[in-house]
Amino acid sequence: MALTPPATMRAAVLYGPGDIRVVERAVPEPGPGEVLVRVAMCGTCGTDLKILDGHFPQTPPYGDFVPGHEWAGTVMACGATVDEFSPGDRVCIEAHSGCGRCDNCLTGRYTACLNYANAAKGHRASGMTADGGFAEYALHNSNALYRMPASVSFEDAVLITTAGTGLYGLDVAGGYIAGQDVVVFGPGPVGLMTVQLCTALAANRVILVGTRASRLEAGRRLGATHIVNARETDPVKEILELTDGHGADVSIEASGGADAPQQCAEVTKRAGRIVVVAYYADRVTFDLSAVVRKDISIYTSRGEGGNNVKRAVAMAAAGRLRGAELVTHRIPLDEVAEAFRIVRERDGDPIKVVVTP
Amino acid sequence: MALTPPATMRAAVLYGPGDIRVVERAVPEPGPGEVLVRVAMCGTCGTDLKILDGHFPQTPPYGDFVPGHEWAGTVMACGATVDEFSPGDRVCIEAHSGCGRCDNCLTGRYTACLNYANAAKGHRASGMTADGGFAEYALHNSNALYRMPASVSFEDAVLITTAGTGLYGLDVAGGYIAGQDVVVFGPGPVGLMTVQLCTALAANRVILVGTRASRLEAGRRLGATHIVNARETDPVKEILELTDGHGADVSIEASGGADAPQQCAEVTKRAGRIVVVAYYADRVTFDLSAVVRKDISIYTSRGEGGNNVKRAVAMAAAGRLRGAELVTHRIPLDEVAEAFRIVRERDGDPIKVVVTP
Amino acid sequence: MALTPPATMRAAVLYGPGDIRVVERAVPEPGPGEVLVRVAMCGTCGTDLKILDGHFPQTPPYGDFVPGHEWAGTVMACGATVDEFSPGDRVCIEAHSGCGRCDNCLTGRYTACLNYANAAKGHRASGMTADGGFAEYALHNSNALYRMPASVSFEDAVLITTAGTGLYGLDVAGGYIAGQDVVVFGPGPVGLMTVQLCTALAANRVILVGTRASRLEAGRRLGATHIVNARETDPVKEILELTDGHGADVSIEASGGADAPQQCAEVTKRAGRIVVVAYYADRVTFDLSAVVRKDISIYTSRGEGGNNVKRAVAMAAAGRLRGAELVTHRIPLDEVAEAFRIVRERDGDPIKVVVTP
Amino acid sequence: MALTPPATMRAAVLYGPGDIRVVERAVPEPGPGEVLVRVAMCGTCGTDLKILDGHFPQTPPYGDFVPGHEWAGTVMACGATVDEFSPGDRVCIEAHSGCGRCDNCLTGRYTACLNYANAAKGHRASGMTADGGFAEYALHNSNALYRMPASVSFEDAVLITTAGTGLYGLDVAGGYIAGQDVVVFGPGPVGLMTVQLCTALAANRVILVGTRASRLEAGRRLGATHIVNARETDPVKEILELTDGHGADVSIEASGGADAPQQCAEVTKRAGRIVVVAYYADRVTFDLSAVVRKDISIYTSRGEGGNNVKRAVAMAAAGRLRGAELVTHRIPLDEVAEAFRIVRERDGDPIKVVVTP
Repeated sequence: MALTPPATMRAAVLYGPGDIRVVERAVPEPGPGEVLVRVAMCGTCGTDLKILDGHFPQTPPYGDFVPGHEWAGTVMACGATVDEFSPGDRVCIEAHSGCGRCDNCLTGRYTACLNYANAAKGHRASGMTADGGFAEYALHNSNALYRMPASVSFEDAVLITTAGTGLYGLDVAGGYIAGQDVVVFGPGPVGLMTVQLCTALAANRVILVGTRASRLEAGRRLGATHIVNARETDPVKEILELTDGHGADVSIEASGGADAPQQCAEVTKRAGRIVVVAYYADRVTFDLSAVVRKDISIYTSRGEGGNNVKRAVAMAAAGRLRGAELVTHRIPLDEVAEAFRIVRERDGDPIKVVVTP
Repeated sequence: MALTPPATMRAAVLYGPGDIRVVERAVPEPGPGEVLVRVAMCGTCGTDLKILDGHFPQTPPYGDFVPGHEWAGTVMACGATVDEFSPGDRVCIEAHSGCGRCDNCLTGRYTACLNYANAAKGHRASGMTADGGFAEYALHNSNALYRMPASVSFEDAVLITTAGTGLYGLDVAGGYIAGQDVVVFGPGPVGLMTVQLCTALAANRVILVGTRASRLEAGRRLGATHIVNARETDPVKEILELTDGHGADVSIEASGGADAPQQCAEVTKRAGRIVVVAYYADRVTFDLSAVVRKDISIYTSRGEGGNNVKRAVAMAAAGRLRGAELVTHRIPLDEVAEAFRIVRERDGDPIKVVVTP
Repeated sequence: MALTPPATMRAAVLYGPGDIRVVERAVPEPGPGEVLVRVAMCGTCGTDLKILDGHFPQTPPYGDFVPGHEWAGTVMACGATVDEFSPGDRVCIEAHSGCGRCDNCLTGRYTACLNYANAAKGHRASGMTADGGFAEYALHNSNALYRMPASVSFEDAVLITTAGTGLYGLDVAGGYIAGQDVVVFGPGPVGLMTVQLCTALAANRVILVGTRASRLEAGRRLGATHIVNARETDPVKEILELTDGHGADVSIEASGGADAPQQCAEVTKRAGRIVVVAYYADRVTFDLSAVVRKDISIYTSRGEGGNNVKRAVAMAAAGRLRGAELVTHRIPLDEVAEAFRIVRERDGDPIKVVVTP
Repeated sequence: MALTPPATMRAAVLYGPGDIRVVERAVPEPGPGEVLVRVAMCGTCGTDLKILDGHFPQTPPYGDFVPGHEWAGTVMACGATVDEFSPGDRVCIEAHSGCGRCDNCLTGRYTACLNYANAAKGHRASGMTADGGFAEYALHNSNALYRMPASVSFEDAVLITTAGTGLYGLDVAGGYIAGQDVVVFGPGPVGLMTVQLCTALAANRVILVGTRASRLEAGRRLGATHIVNARETDPVKEILELTDGHGADVSIEASGGADAPQQCAEVTKRAGRIVVVAYYADRVTFDLSAVVRKDISIYTSRGEGGNNVKRAVAMAAAGRLRGAELVTHRIPLDEVAEAFRIVRERDGDPIKVVVTP
């Protein structure tokens, strides 16, 4: 059984830097290994602003590209060979689907696919190198979709993708933080989801560092045991005091702030781990010698990978991961440009702005 | 400040196979790196029966050995160089303290110390190669003690040591089970604590297999999402059904049953992990070819190690690990022989029998 | 440029248990992601005997299946999207190519593909679930082919696949054996290649255990620092003596002997590793308690995986891995049945029997 | 049997910044777990200059401190409990011996000991927090000494400690580089020993980057497959060309150059690893976003740890690690100040300057 999609749909197409327009397009048909999904909701994130401004490498040409890489919806039709899903299944995504044939995909590192953006070889980064979710319908490879039970809302689902980025960072760093002290820098969506992940993985102290009281309070509701407002106190000093002078076992940098790498170096315990899940406006400057002297390793996550969205879905289904309460704005697809204005100008203190077709 | 212990104490001394007597002994004095603890409670376990029967290698000579390796209490005095603890601190233990100088201790594998039982070189396995906790007072190396907050009861503390065995098994296996399906064979104390650990580490399904309904129900209360009574159903068939035919990502063998290794081989997913935290009456027989064909790895834990008791204390302090409800019998030290009778004969369906001085 | 293959070829087709016949078949055409190779040589191994006898699951139907999973040759033509290879490239293979979409493929464990034998989803195990190399031409997925320089002979190349099995076993076990003592049980092709791998990875002692003097001598030539003839001496006793009583850091079981797992348990050091790269005639019996007591982990490798054939090619190209000298018999394709008779009856003490079209 | 050391010895004592004098001192006596060694040779390194200038934290007070942390010699006497060594044994060292009781020592990370410089608790960093090897005799903890066969010269032995730093870096990074492309920045002693290590561990390409032709040639003799003179060519461009445009799997930063971290970020393959075994004059500046975007992890090694000197000794004994040819200057102990002048001024292009009592 396949649900019957219409022939055309509304979709937000990027026509030039900052020029995104909602137009009528043909609904795509799923090829082998592909699935067509009716989009219920698509989140916006900082990377979308780069994409919108034309600062993201390897996007499709203007006039023919639908962004949006944090989406969820309902399966409409499955392409050849796809029996993993059935029409009607509620699904969320990870953006990256690797080529399956390069060294990195073969060894499970598909977010680092060496055939990045090579659609012919099977790579697809939804909303980045291929059409994404700011549309009524979207295609994705079956291996980047995850079925979710009815108990997980679409709002939650959008944030599951966000959580996948933090969870992959923890995974790359070994994945075992039970009973350890963790600091999370940056109470944006990734940071706030990561606070929850750390709690769900039985961390001991979860210390959230930020500058906006409302965000820090959100973090506390989501499980942070301590919050540190870097506008009011020196976070390095405070974290060291909270952690018996030794520092945190794990520091997670989700802020993208220019000072954050140095602060991570200072607050991380000897033999500890730093996990970077952020991007920076410029090159960063920090005391790498201190990192060496303290035997610290630095891990990174460019996005949800390592099949961690599957793990995150399970955590959400069990009630351990709540995303919906981070959704502060719901904007109709036709007003997608307004959604980006809100994100860019931080109008109304948005945490996660979602677009609904 | 040091609390003042008395000169002598009551202690349960092993005089021969099955011959354990409570006698008066001098209270030991802590040497460098040692801590004297007033024992609040000491758990009994299957290994104690082997020790009692003289089937445990490298125990001290009869007439001069106090068993007991799952104990907790209050710090009375610290030996030279010990500033990690203060009199009055409530502590629990891990049994093993390594020599700190062999290849294995140097690389963090102190439960596999190559100087096992060599006290002169610093090794001590409390209640196994050195005096343990069936006494009013006990010594231990400072590196095997863990401070606990007031919110963790001594009953909980005894089971934290038990939990440490399962947690070390998970640690050795990578430590990352979030969102994965786990089967636990054997609802004894190790198995039941491991069920809680898996829940606390955000596993997806936690399937507990056993033969006694009361134990299985205890497991359900502690977080098992599914229970399988192997007397009533074929556990292999049922687990495969529960896990979409693929089997569990992780199988934890805590039963010591002769059939369990084979069942693990059958219910573990391709590329999955088996963790063995049990001992067997005899050599075991199973289809090792199937383990190879399925790319499965087998990890083991002989006891709490890898600093995991520290992690378990943090989990207990956060309310994620409850031990007290597994304590079914509290027996005064003077009746320690009776405690062992209960354990041996399973009189009154004991889960954890603790001895209180 | 594509070389032009003929329309038909000679190929060894399995018609029933033990009934393999060389017939004329159409040369296949490479589809998307596939490569057509003119086979230079195809090795035989123990698994082939199981396949020949019909004891291997999920082979194609009789009358339509060409076995052979250790082959090398020259690229003739590349299917759509394949730019990794060019006609004329000399290549060797790993047998397994995963679906790229199941949990295990996504996380780099493609030899444990959950869509094993599902060709529609992209899985292919050459010579096991799809046509293999006992033919003049063979197809394979581009992600399971490895280019080799002219300095690596086709004889070497056949053994590179064999080496990949041992190397993947070491990889799964952590991959780091420099300066450690290793025991290899079983001087068959896998064992002998693994001896070389251990030497190439800078192991300290490399102790080879076997029963045939000629094989042990071959092992010594390939780098074994010690050889133990289990017919003449007790291998457990001798290995413990060679390793200061502690045993080997790593034991590699490549013999498939019924006693070998127990011997591994006895000769492996506390906290050591056992790597099983063998299959057994029956269930095996061994002291699992001892494995637990010694904190040993057991890793397995069902075949070359984890992109390790790429590593092995590099090692061969650098002269660190020699395979050709293990090739004891070269049999023309038309006499493939005779090749299997030699393997089965061990006629002439074959190490590796290769078939040449 | 103990060899009989004299009552006094000549030793180089630091009296103030840059003020090192050879004086007469009592030969120390080994306490429990300690070993007295007659020093055959002690290497100098960059860290010694910091120590000499008073820029190294936690050194003993002026007038009472003998530096020197790369030494080798012959065991004279063993303290209580030491049966691992006998008088006459030839030994080399790793500088760090941990407390054996902090979280990091318990889990095998003793170079990151949380009781660093706390001698009472058992920590000792020879030549850094305790007397070292610029003397006729030196004490060390037994767990930081490694016996070597006669085939390993003392010159080699001094460099084994150096190799241990690179080897620990590789160990922390996973230890498995067989068949992979590696770049080593900085042909100093650590870099040149690391080139050898990479060769011994069966790396594929080993590309050495430096600025002095003589050093690069030394690297080529020691196994580098490619050398890049950064004065003559752009190393980033050249390395990318050498590695098919993808970059190296592993970049090892052993130069301490201000530009090197950025170069590592640029030449490391997606999902690759950077290993930092250097210190920097100042904070470093590099494109951390690129590291994140490429899914790269950064590992560090502050010095030989993880029992890797044991591995390096085995590699040297097997002829896979040559140190002696890096020893360019042999200076008598009485002229230790001159030795440091040579190192500081790079007089005569020294690679490793050793001091002999």
